[in-house]
Amino acid sequence: MGMPDNVTTSRDYPIPDTMKAWVIGDPGELIYGEKPIPAPKKAEVLVRIDAVAICATDLEIIYHGPPAMIEGGAPYNKNFTPGHEYMGTVVALGPGVDEFAIGERVTVEIHAGCGQCKRCRQGMYTSCHNYGKNYGDVDKGHRANGFTTDGGFAEYAVNNINTLVHVDDSMSDEEATLVVTAGTSMYGLTELGGLVAGESVVVSGPGPIGLLGAAVAKALGAQPVILTGTRDNRLEIGKKLGADHVINIRNEDPVAKVRELTGGKGVDYVVECSGAPNAVNEAAQMLNRGGKICLAAFPGDQVPIDVAYLVRNNIYLYGIRGEGKTATHRAEAFMRQKRFDARLIHTHTFDMADLPEAIRYAKDRVEDAIKVVVRNRRAEQMIAAAE
Amino acid sequence: MGMPDNVTTSRDYPIPDTMKAWVIGDPGELIYGEKPIPAPKKAEVLVRIDAVAICATDLEIIYHGPPAMIEGGAPYNKNFTPGHEYMGTVVALGPGVDEFAIGERVTVEIHAGCGQCKRCRQGMYTSCHNYGKNYGDVDKGHRANGFTTDGGFAEYAVNNINTLVHVDDSMSDEEATLVVTAGTSMYGLTELGGLVAGESVVVSGPGPIGLLGAAVAKALGAQPVILTGTRDNRLEIGKKLGADHVINIRNEDPVAKVRELTGGKGVDYVVECSGAPNAVNEAAQMLNRGGKICLAAFPGDQVPIDVAYLVRNNIYLYGIRGEGKTATHRAEAFMRQKRFDARLIHTHTFDMADLPEAIRYAKDRVEDAIKVVVRNRRAEQMIAAAE
Amino acid sequence: MGMPDNVTTSRDYPIPDTMKAWVIGDPGELIYGEKPIPAPKKAEVLVRIDAVAICATDLEIIYHGPPAMIEGGAPYNKNFTPGHEYMGTVVALGPGVDEFAIGERVTVEIHAGCGQCKRCRQGMYTSCHNYGKNYGDVDKGHRANGFTTDGGFAEYAVNNINTLVHVDDSMSDEEATLVVTAGTSMYGLTELGGLVAGESVVVSGPGPIGLLGAAVAKALGAQPVILTGTRDNRLEIGKKLGADHVINIRNEDPVAKVRELTGGKGVDYVVECSGAPNAVNEAAQMLNRGGKICLAAFPGDQVPIDVAYLVRNNIYLYGIRGEGKTATHRAEAFMRQKRFDARLIHTHTFDMADLPEAIRYAKDRVEDAIKVVVRNRRAEQMIAAAE
Amino acid sequence: MGMPDNVTTSRDYPIPDTMKAWVIGDPGELIYGEKPIPAPKKAEVLVRIDAVAICATDLEIIYHGPPAMIEGGAPYNKNFTPGHEYMGTVVALGPGVDEFAIGERVTVEIHAGCGQCKRCRQGMYTSCHNYGKNYGDVDKGHRANGFTTDGGFAEYAVNNINTLVHVDDSMSDEEATLVVTAGTSMYGLTELGGLVAGESVVVSGPGPIGLLGAAVAKALGAQPVILTGTRDNRLEIGKKLGADHVINIRNEDPVAKVRELTGGKGVDYVVECSGAPNAVNEAAQMLNRGGKICLAAFPGDQVPIDVAYLVRNNIYLYGIRGEGKTATHRAEAFMRQKRFDARLIHTHTFDMADLPEAIRYAKDRVEDAIKVVVRNRRAEQMIAAAE
Repeated sequence: MGMPDNVTTSRDYPIPDTMKAWVIGDPGELIYGEKPIPAPKKAEVLVRIDAVAICATDLEIIYHGPPAMIEGGAPYNKNFTPGHEYMGTVVALGPGVDEFAIGERVTVEIHAGCGQCKRCRQGMYTSCHNYGKNYGDVDKGHRANGFTTDGGFAEYAVNNINTLVHVDDSMSDEEATLVVTAGTSMYGLTELGGLVAGESVVVSGPGPIGLLGAAVAKALGAQPVILTGTRDNRLEIGKKLGADHVINIRNEDPVAKVRELTGGKGVDYVVECSGAPNAVNEAAQMLNRGGKICLAAFPGDQVPIDVAYLVRNNIYLYGIRGEGKTATHRAEAFMRQKRFDARLIHTHTFDMADLPEAIRYAKDRVEDAIKVVVRNRRAEQMIAAAE
Repeated sequence: MGMPDNVTTSRDYPIPDTMKAWVIGDPGELIYGEKPIPAPKKAEVLVRIDAVAICATDLEIIYHGPPAMIEGGAPYNKNFTPGHEYMGTVVALGPGVDEFAIGERVTVEIHAGCGQCKRCRQGMYTSCHNYGKNYGDVDKGHRANGFTTDGGFAEYAVNNINTLVHVDDSMSDEEATLVVTAGTSMYGLTELGGLVAGESVVVSGPGPIGLLGAAVAKALGAQPVILTGTRDNRLEIGKKLGADHVINIRNEDPVAKVRELTGGKGVDYVVECSGAPNAVNEAAQMLNRGGKICLAAFPGDQVPIDVAYLVRNNIYLYGIRGEGKTATHRAEAFMRQKRFDARLIHTHTFDMADLPEAIRYAKDRVEDAIKVVVRNRRAEQMIAAAE
Repeated sequence: MGMPDNVTTSRDYPIPDTMKAWVIGDPGELIYGEKPIPAPKKAEVLVRIDAVAICATDLEIIYHGPPAMIEGGAPYNKNFTPGHEYMGTVVALGPGVDEFAIGERVTVEIHAGCGQCKRCRQGMYTSCHNYGKNYGDVDKGHRANGFTTDGGFAEYAVNNINTLVHVDDSMSDEEATLVVTAGTSMYGLTELGGLVAGESVVVSGPGPIGLLGAAVAKALGAQPVILTGTRDNRLEIGKKLGADHVINIRNEDPVAKVRELTGGKGVDYVVECSGAPNAVNEAAQMLNRGGKICLAAFPGDQVPIDVAYLVRNNIYLYGIRGEGKTATHRAEAFMRQKRFDARLIHTHTFDMADLPEAIRYAKDRVEDAIKVVVRNRRAEQMIAAAE
Repeated sequence: MGMPDNVTTSRDYPIPDTMKAWVIGDPGELIYGEKPIPAPKKAEVLVRIDAVAICATDLEIIYHGPPAMIEGGAPYNKNFTPGHEYMGTVVALGPGVDEFAIGERVTVEIHAGCGQCKRCRQGMYTSCHNYGKNYGDVDKGHRANGFTTDGGFAEYAVNNINTLVHVDDSMSDEEATLVVTAGTSMYGLTELGGLVAGESVVVSGPGPIGLLGAAVAKALGAQPVILTGTRDNRLEIGKKLGADHVINIRNEDPVAKVRELTGGKGVDYVVECSGAPNAVNEAAQMLNRGGKICLAAFPGDQVPIDVAYLVRNNIYLYGIRGEGKTATHRAEAFMRQKRFDARLIHTHTFDMADLPEAIRYAKDRVEDAIKVVVRNRRAEQMIAAAE
């Protein structure tokens, strides 16, 4: 057993010294290797990974490197383990941790802020000013597993307890990997105002965040919830998740249609999840005066924006990077209460050993893949063997 | 006396039936004519105009017509009286008004929201959904004097009591015309967070709103307050008003300099008052993660914006159209307490009869004009005659 | 037809000159008389009353006089029509009203703030500083039907459009009378923070506001929702409405039980609807540090409170008087979406002609009455005759 | 040198192994002994104490024991060092700390929240749910120096960097000890709303927090600022600090006088710093409808409170325990900018060796003592020797 003395472990969850883990090689290359199992420190636990969903950002990282590295000008990080939408089982407790128990099922959010900077002190830990400062001499305690610290395409990961959400028994492993996605949508609506019952919301772009955005908006009582996109099958799933209306922008002018659906008034909020070049301008025109836009996606390049329209119409615009303000906890509560069926966006499952194939499905949308999940079968076999 | 029976008047302030008033003719043309004096209704008073400051938006209206007209597709309004930064003396009270007294000096803010729409009910009366609906059959009670209803380049104007701010005796008429400008700056800082003591603020663009923005930020305790612009004389005035640092962007890269002045961290807030094409991108790069931008100005055309940068850095962006949330009252309090000397931006005074010449000074910045004020000399003569 | 020319009416809804209306006589006395039908002014409509629920406050007013009268020291108002939880049909539009249509079903909230005072300008219209100033010379436009202006125990009432909520066809008249009660509960949760999904809430006191408070808390995703009270049948209804746990305080110590149900931590919020003498102290002890209490009820006399405990534990305490911040609209949205079945608290129906008997049921809780509704049968007969 | 290897020190600030420190003996007894100098860990620094102000809470702790001990049921802590309003010089840096430099002058706030609990994650670190959990096996990282961890009546103390505020060179050591008091007042106003320019504030009770409360309210632009109390000399100091009006409640009815001073309207905010038994009721009656009370003091016993009045008038009530939301930083900014002269409340200075005598002055208000400061002369001698 390699855990230090101040770490609490259990005979029920024996921890080997090393684990299988995917690491980044050259751009686009993933290598399935062996890594030491890290030990949890103060306010941290060791999580055995049971399932991981693949996110578009994972593809970015695999093909272009972790953003923190790029921003900081560091070389492409060749031994880094990506993956951030995972869930699993607590198997070891760092010193002093009593908030979680060994054997407890947990899912994760990404950002463990440093707890020291201005933003963390305001509760805005996703805007941590020490983002990425967790290597070597400048370790400020910040972690963003799968971004700046090792992530979930592995058998084990260390997580700050701030990033853990208890998973109810009624939820499958696969469903639990979607909590962080729903949490991101929830955070968007939180920042927009949150009390949206009876107010109107457009969600643009039926990707995972957009689809669960429609679901969360409806769970919060918004009406109407309008989802826009280009693929009818996705829009149909959006309807099942809670959208009152869907607009296929290939067939209809979304701005005109939103105005029509709202009696000419426009909506109160837009959650922009498409990243389309004209999305901000269209969102602004869908809104009534004083309305708000949350940007959960963005185009790669600079795009022309009608700033005058934003100012003249008192439009508020927020950019969010992932979840925040413990929105994952609120999202898990809705999922536990079966307010919407997040499983509708889970389309494929692979063994973690087959990660490259799983990534191909996610990247190329093979068989209309939305969320592709990889499972850690070895963990399951260990459980089966123990029973 | 032409006032209806339900209007309260005073012998001390006799009200004639008609008044001198400037009205818009063809684009760019102002005609000095005679108009009936309007009667105040419920929650309204009649104000005798004593002084009016000229705003850049007045020039827009004179040359291109009131925005409400344009937005609504109405014809160029040939009998409209512009002017919205005025102060004066209450001379008649509509039915039931006891909030103000005849003879009281008041200055104005622009927006009297309808009080009925969603935004007015939220306290966001500058985003009134019935903006401009105050003509004929669709009168919703909204008023924006000088924009949608007759303004201050005249001898009298009707004002909703919601738009009035008491003027302290220690303040001259000319200074009082600047309250609404300071109120706009104050509103920007209010929406940005408001509790800025010890936090860092950049104000970009040393026009009237920017200069008083630096003053208000300092009065609120911000530090450092950094003002950027292209003209050294304006920047010097900014220093006197409260800017700790000024940056002439002709000589220095403002983003690099702001980073340097903040120890590499960037600032917490930017109040954008320049309307420059790259202003939003530069503002974003001046901010630390999670920072906020208030847009009080905008470029005429669409401009390229790095949306990805906004999202990745959790930037919040607000557009404000003028003052709001009774920020004029807060601004007046600071001015009454002599926290900054707004008079520093008042450069020229003309008689109202000379409005076209006053406008030329404002428009062409003759003799480095910043705020040009016109006075209603006839009012003064009436006072002199009465004394 | 007695309506002025500037009022819009319809042949489908002929309006007589007078109506049947209950008015207050001596304390405790109600007289069924005849009154003129009032005309709607600007921003007002005339509502034909279809159904009215009886509230405990109605009993207060009938037995002790309207609070505004008492506060202002005015004599007991002998010709006043009480009743404030009503719904009906729009039958005439004041000048300029296009927000509602003749024939539209509406339910009401109570407070039409003056729109002019400090609080109304902040969106806090239930705290209107001109409350009660709507008689004679000091009419500031404030209305609180059933409190300061004539209410709903009559055939018609004038309502400011700000007080109207559209009623969906899926909702019965009786259910629609409960929107304002649910709106009060919603307002309490709004002021407490609003984003309560996954957070813990105690509702103390299973009266109508408490029962719907449990329902609204659950609809917002709170968990657990704990309801305390003394009557098992009420608590059982609370369970059906959304309470996860109920505590009969006759059998269990509610503070100890709440601590137990929350793993020793205490809850995040308490909505106090019991008015019990020790309710504030108990609420404080149910909370975790930094928690919040909303007071929707209160004891008649001064009660001893442990202020030191509030301060040491950073407790926030809010008093609400009825609904606010358009919470009725949010409540109606949840009811339209069938998130909870408010009809569970409607127990009895009477004809409006039988109001005294209906009041006896409500006052003495005859047959375990919770919400007693009176219907305007004459309206129904007119509808039947027309069909 | 006893510091571990991962602590950064400097030859300019040699650190001995032990220090002189006052510790609690029996209730009311202070012993001047020798203690080891603690080492700073991650996110901590070692501060050489230069000056400490005595707070009423220190007397509580010295005579009755630290609250955390009492709450937790632990025995009276005989080796504990009290003192929490101190300032000093950074002399050693824990691992990874680069936010402060050795030799930098700093003053402190009290609460270093755990950074892990619900409240800390919301930015409400003064309501930390792990308050007091920093001994032995349950160390959650929370610190409240002088309350739950060793404080400032000693030569050195360890501080989390979150509790440090840079001290400007223009401020003396004595003045710097008052930052945390001003920060508490600022926090009260922050929680009340913060944007108080032009709004009216009553501060009741001219103790240190009340006096600086008047100062901070004025610095924020409030008007009028009204201070109530029983001692004219204190009230006079309040005037110099910024109070527009003072009320000696021995001579005048404070509720009636506040009403008179506000034209019958009542004030917008009350900061209650007296702890008088009827203070909450009087505060409520001083307020206009919808106003807010911040409780920064409290009576020892339960007191009768008119809850009905709070509810009927939509009164908001907050209890604060010390500073929060980095209000000390905002207070320091105002003090640095010389917006008020906090030194007016510093009346006496003693050597730290004479702490018992200093405490006698503070406790018995000898010579009208307000703030009594003790200085660490040995630190000064070391500086003198080095120069």
